[in-house]
Amino acid sequence: MDGWILAFDFGGTKLSAALLPLAALSESQPTWTAQRRVFSPANGDARDDLQTMIRLGHELLAGRKATAVGVSFGGPVDAAAGMVRLSHHVPGWENAPLQALLAAEFAAPVRIDNDANTAALGEWRFGAGRGVADLLYITVSTGVGGGWVLNGRPWRGHQSMAGEIGHMVVDPGGPLCLCGKRGCVERLASGPYMAQDYNAQRPNADAPITGELVARLAAQGDETAVRILRRGAWALGVGIGNAANLMNPQLFVLGGGVTKSGELWWDVVRQTARATALPEVAVTIVPAALQDDAPLWGAVALAYRIYD
Amino acid sequence: MDGWILAFDFGGTKLSAALLPLAALSESQPTWTAQRRVFSPANGDARDDLQTMIRLGHELLAGRKATAVGVSFGGPVDAAAGMVRLSHHVPGWENAPLQALLAAEFAAPVRIDNDANTAALGEWRFGAGRGVADLLYITVSTGVGGGWVLNGRPWRGHQSMAGEIGHMVVDPGGPLCLCGKRGCVERLASGPYMAQDYNAQRPNADAPITGELVARLAAQGDETAVRILRRGAWALGVGIGNAANLMNPQLFVLGGGVTKSGELWWDVVRQTARATALPEVAVTIVPAALQDDAPLWGAVALAYRIYD
Repeated sequence: MDGWILAFDFGGTKLSAALLPLAALSESQPTWTAQRRVFSPANGDARDDLQTMIRLGHELLAGRKATAVGVSFGGPVDAAAGMVRLSHHVPGWENAPLQALLAAEFAAPVRIDNDANTAALGEWRFGAGRGVADLLYITVSTGVGGGWVLNGRPWRGHQSMAGEIGHMVVDPGGPLCLCGKRGCVERLASGPYMAQDYNAQRPNADAPITGELVARLAAQGDETAVRILRRGAWALGVGIGNAANLMNPQLFVLGGGVTKSGELWWDVVRQTARATALPEVAVTIVPAALQDDAPLWGAVALAYRIYD
Repeated sequence: MDGWILAFDFGGTKLSAALLPLAALSESQPTWTAQRRVFSPANGDARDDLQTMIRLGHELLAGRKATAVGVSFGGPVDAAAGMVRLSHHVPGWENAPLQALLAAEFAAPVRIDNDANTAALGEWRFGAGRGVADLLYITVSTGVGGGWVLNGRPWRGHQSMAGEIGHMVVDPGGPLCLCGKRGCVERLASGPYMAQDYNAQRPNADAPITGELVARLAAQGDETAVRILRRGAWALGVGIGNAANLMNPQLFVLGGGVTKSGELWWDVVRQTARATALPEVAVTIVPAALQDDAPLWGAVALAYRIYD
């Protein structure tokens, strides 16, 4: 199998690109031929990012021809149309025909999708979900998002909006989320919101803390931190249990910074999900294997299989 | 297109059977060649029901040969294995190989599934969901259950347990459900639970009332009934909005007795679902078209397409 897959992961603040020979896809642990990572300029726009993608791609290819190109984009994407809807970080991406632009540039078929869907596909094909038929990948980080693989294919929904487990309401009497609702999973479980709640409850603390610090303080026995961390894990667990009842996937894969919060967090997530799902519904939850590289590996899978 | 589809709907207390010529499937509103409906004996068991199915099938066929047989079963089914797991109404159905038994009897391919999944398929192929790619069908009746069609195919989940929107938790501080959790959609939105809550709040009412009566009393302005009906509709609306965020299906189809509760109920369901889904996520909710016949029509679709 001759040929090369060119993969991009555009995250908003940084851009990764990698090249993989098709032959490597039959290996159990394929490795990149070459990989590049650059940070976006502070005041850049979509045009800058696109030029950087094109430049990195050609540098990696070094005269070779790409068989297929896959792109993970950190923002809403209409995967079927090959269009970026917008970037929440960089101006100028509104309705950009990224698939067509890259297809013309690299003279190869291109597929694009949002980072939650590509991460799901990456974990399914190369990571913690290898060998299962279907999974929900959930990233718990500055936000909470998800991506589905069902029967070995991405499930994106009617408007490419599926996977928004972060805005599932699990506590209608809970605190207000930026989305306007109360008690969304993201409002309770994401790092910045946990930090915000800690700061609000401990106004005399030395300095504002982060989601990561909440987990560290909880590990040290800080009661406020323990309560906030448990509540976040509980919210995510209810979300997972609800998703299990609704879709009955074979596996849940959790990635993102908050999943590094330690055993307490994992225990509460697993126990709550188990208690929320019906007894007959299996709930298997595992940590992501690829972490930050999941979208890039997912871009490879996306390009290779040429999903529509 | 010569040939006949034999369809069964076994609901626990009654059994329907119908015969349809394959040629009728190209009509926009096909009608049965013949249909039979019988009630199960009060103290019957699975053996009785099976004999009745076989007898009705042969009566309808009257010597003709079935091209394919589809069965909707009112209870948990392992569709892939063709096995009934059990009936909650009739003893003896535990692990019955219904697909194989009927295939031997009628010398034709047989497919079986639970009634929520077949109703979803029936509405998709012949009812309110014609022409859409994917939908969630929800029955709101003595229980609350659901069935998925995704990309024109049933989605049953890893253990044939998908669709349990009735046991999605939407109010963790809410009343206790028979499943052991608090604030499940079913606990708040199903007919018997609404009736139970009304009776508990109006202990001096003349006689215990039903879910249907709660809706009628609400229409007459009874404040307790209005509050209970609104709460049920709210719970279902949160469940639908959560499902929309998670799966982004094109359509939600609602059937079952509680959906006859009038405009107030529909308004609250629709408004709550709309408010729960993200602004970018479309939520289209329509009443079922086939009602009680949905599982039987779904059995036709199941047989005809021979889904696995």
